Amino acid sequence: MDGKQDPYMRIAEIDIDPAQLETYKTAIREQVEAAVGVEPGVLALYAVSDKDDPTHITVFEIYADVAAYQAHLETVHFKKYKDATQGKVKSLKLRETVPVVLGAKT
Amino acid sequence: MDGKQDPYMRIAEIDIDPAQLETYKTAIREQVEAAVGVEPGVLALYAVSDKDDPTHITVFEIYADVAAYQAHLETVHFKKYKDATQGKVKSLKLRETVPVVLGAKT
Repeated sequence: MDGKQDPYMRIAEIDIDPAQLETYKTAIREQVEAAVGVEPGVLALYAVSDKDDPTHITVFEIYADVAAYQAHLETVHFKKYKDATQGKVKSLKLRETVPVVLGAKT
Repeated sequence: MDGKQDPYMRIAEIDIDPAQLETYKTAIREQVEAAVGVEPGVLALYAVSDKDDPTHITVFEIYADVAAYQAHLETVHFKKYKDATQGKVKSLKLRETVPVVLGAKT
């Protein structure tokens, strides 16, 4: 992530129906592993839950560029995830973000 | 990040005084570069701003373990950052999080 072009970054904040949390987690794990595994422009998808509220999920998303994000939305694994999690998501807030500083061990 | 132990992860949500935004960004860039550069347990610090509200900063933080986070708070560069940004931060919300799935290109 220290190339010439900034990556395209987003944050998703998702509240899950508590009764459906484990099913939701299985679906997002499958989706993330597929996306990072097969899509060249999906650089990282980090999904975490709040320690104080495990039904609140934050996904920190890093794509090579906006085209990689748009391509991601059209993949079979993403569409399967959206279908599988429909009705399990109570609220979804999406934010586009811009890097200030991206520091990571190489 | 596919070792046996989950990393220790946190999210900071920070609102900056608009008049102080550039000074704040300089301070956080210096701090992140120092921390990731010299602290073995600071795995990643990703600071981004909302595209629709550049004064809202989100920092996605990955440490090897909680001891690495505690050590980070005691470093000269972190204390310098806290001093330099005092009065520039309008609000600060910190959340401890737990990994659900961490997918990244290797």
